Amino acid sequence: MISDFKSILSENVLGMKRSAIRELLKLTQDPDIISFAGGLPYPDSFPVEELKQITSEVLDAEPGLALQYGTTEGDPKLRKLIVENYRSYGFDIGMENIVITTASQQGLDLLSKIFINRGDKVIVGLPSYLGGLGAFNSYGGKMIGVCFDEHGMCSKTLEIKLKELKAAGEKPKFIYIIPDFQNPAGVTIPDFRRKEIIELSHKYDVLLIEDSPYKQLRFEGKDQQSLYSMDGTGQVINLGTFSKIFVPGFRIGWVIAHKDIIDKFVVAKQNTDLCTSPFVQKIAAKYIEKGFFDIKLKEIIHSYHEKRDLMLDAFEKYMPEGVSWTRPEGGLFLFLTLPEHMDAEKLFVKAIEKKVAFVIGSVFHCDGSGRNTARINFSYVSKEKNVEGVKRLAEVIKAEM
Amino acid sequence: MISDFKSILSENVLGMKRSAIRELLKLTQDPDIISFAGGLPYPDSFPVEELKQITSEVLDAEPGLALQYGTTEGDPKLRKLIVENYRSYGFDIGMENIVITTASQQGLDLLSKIFINRGDKVIVGLPSYLGGLGAFNSYGGKMIGVCFDEHGMCSKTLEIKLKELKAAGEKPKFIYIIPDFQNPAGVTIPDFRRKEIIELSHKYDVLLIEDSPYKQLRFEGKDQQSLYSMDGTGQVINLGTFSKIFVPGFRIGWVIAHKDIIDKFVVAKQNTDLCTSPFVQKIAAKYIEKGFFDIKLKEIIHSYHEKRDLMLDAFEKYMPEGVSWTRPEGGLFLFLTLPEHMDAEKLFVKAIEKKVAFVIGSVFHCDGSGRNTARINFSYVSKEKNVEGVKRLAEVIKAEM
Repeated sequence: MISDFKSILSENVLGMKRSAIRELLKLTQDPDIISFAGGLPYPDSFPVEELKQITSEVLDAEPGLALQYGTTEGDPKLRKLIVENYRSYGFDIGMENIVITTASQQGLDLLSKIFINRGDKVIVGLPSYLGGLGAFNSYGGKMIGVCFDEHGMCSKTLEIKLKELKAAGEKPKFIYIIPDFQNPAGVTIPDFRRKEIIELSHKYDVLLIEDSPYKQLRFEGKDQQSLYSMDGTGQVINLGTFSKIFVPGFRIGWVIAHKDIIDKFVVAKQNTDLCTSPFVQKIAAKYIEKGFFDIKLKEIIHSYHEKRDLMLDAFEKYMPEGVSWTRPEGGLFLFLTLPEHMDAEKLFVKAIEKKVAFVIGSVFHCDGSGRNTARINFSYVSKEKNVEGVKRLAEVIKAEM
Repeated sequence: MISDFKSILSENVLGMKRSAIRELLKLTQDPDIISFAGGLPYPDSFPVEELKQITSEVLDAEPGLALQYGTTEGDPKLRKLIVENYRSYGFDIGMENIVITTASQQGLDLLSKIFINRGDKVIVGLPSYLGGLGAFNSYGGKMIGVCFDEHGMCSKTLEIKLKELKAAGEKPKFIYIIPDFQNPAGVTIPDFRRKEIIELSHKYDVLLIEDSPYKQLRFEGKDQQSLYSMDGTGQVINLGTFSKIFVPGFRIGWVIAHKDIIDKFVVAKQNTDLCTSPFVQKIAAKYIEKGFFDIKLKEIIHSYHEKRDLMLDAFEKYMPEGVSWTRPEGGLFLFLTLPEHMDAEKLFVKAIEKKVAFVIGSVFHCDGSGRNTARINFSYVSKEKNVEGVKRLAEVIKAEM
């Protein structure tokens, strides 16, 4: 082994942290623990029988293409189906506006690879998705946090930050937004706020990243127009994935953007993993074509809606005074705020002893704030365990108060 | 769209080139062209019926795990099977020495992410694998080329380069080697040269990268010990993949290294794509467990051996005086050297007109040399087309002479 291993590591890897969530996922393998920690879909929602049938059909119809290398851009049929779906939601896009990625995390990685030089500024929410923060950080991006109000990222604070940067002669590389049922906060940005944020992105000439893994998982309320179609000028890069609305195990995501931007994603992806598995892409395309996707999505929405309701009821019933939480209109998460003096990290240790897990909120805050917050996932465990888990969590919180 | 798009791109992406091979792959979709260009396996070698059966079994046995997120390290059973296989070849490794990657290209990407700061030196062969060069380049690595003799990378030149760098107070991050049936040169490094290179890596305290996608595809001659097991100290990082010995469409590769190095790969992979598809990993594991892998590998070796022989015969028969080529003992490629004055790029245009394709050799040379060379793949097209393609190519060459 080389004499001084640490001395040859890149600045990139020296700055990386192990993902708290990935490490927590390992805990979810203890069957006694009720885990609200991961962002995992409910395994019973997986279309097992449909996939057995479809895989067989794909291997009969196009074995030579399904098992071979594919193009970096992605399977043409899958891209076409996704483009058609987005067009029906008002996206003015064609085949030149999409690239398939190895799930959304690769979208975030390539985004960072394309835009971030070490030390570049990136604007993120307080809180924001950990996988986004991890990707930006892994290329030396410096995060600037913008606080949330009940409508998501606060546009006034956003403008203050943009002004400050401009005054200092700096321009952030992009503003990172998860507009629907945000991970971790569970907040959805309303139309007026979306407009404000888009206007600011034009005024300060900064790209907007719209990370949109949950948009189709709406339980109630009015669907909000996406930032991409609302803008319409190519200022927005939209990230999508099948992980929450089909299966995460296929690792299929996509990026929708101006064709000049997609071109850079394709070049970067060539150097990163050549192509995403054509095998799973072809299975996914057939799954959509056969209409299974739409049927199953309704089932998933129904199931998560029920679970959210049960969990909200259990929170009302069991949580002590002084604890508050968001009421998401969709998605997978709600966000818990504990009394100011409480430390979610200490609570976590106690919670694991009582066999219930969550993610401490501070990891979603690039400035280390949010120490009295926690992310609670309601999609992964069964309805019964959802309620039992909230009971256990409430007891742990009461004991700490 | 943002006002000056180019101004916000990272140095990484500004330095990237579109992969010539990926662009060429698009040509292979014209059914009239006989393509020796890609590094594609023969589609008839894909185990279609076996995969139909196995996929169904995996979806019956562990749907909840196969379709869910997996651990970043990779499927435990698949890792164990690969570790056991390598141990039988003299690798002193355990489960802490392996991480599954989204094919070998991700291994090269993560390797670069972990070790390369912009401007860092990396030693590569003249010629060397384009995907490696692309990955190193995409993080700002500066390639230093070392020429080849009939035994692969020339150890004397390697020492001269290492000495020069040391005198300049510099240390390259690693030496990149493809020891078996090298892509593109088709050369295998003999034992004595392997020892020399390992000694140099210790003397100059530099990591060795052993990229090993073809090792198991040996047609004749004695198997050479891998650099990893020959070294035995953890100085070597070994990259493997199923792409050439099973199917590329699954995008499964792995990295074998000292546990401290694997730890960095895992952290980097968390930020890059979270995990490789557990679905395809579980199918691959069952494919090995059921013994299909060993049976099919023998068939692939037999088929490529036949094709190589046919191609070598056709070269003897049709190629004009002044053209020479390597005689690989395995793998997928042979390397053509044209008369000094000939330009393979000009030849390529003529060849496409005559419906035959190859990869120009200069793209494998980090210093732009090798303009009179070409890489020829013999695995992808049928035996008949192999011979017909050589005939066409020989005619194009004769016409240019």
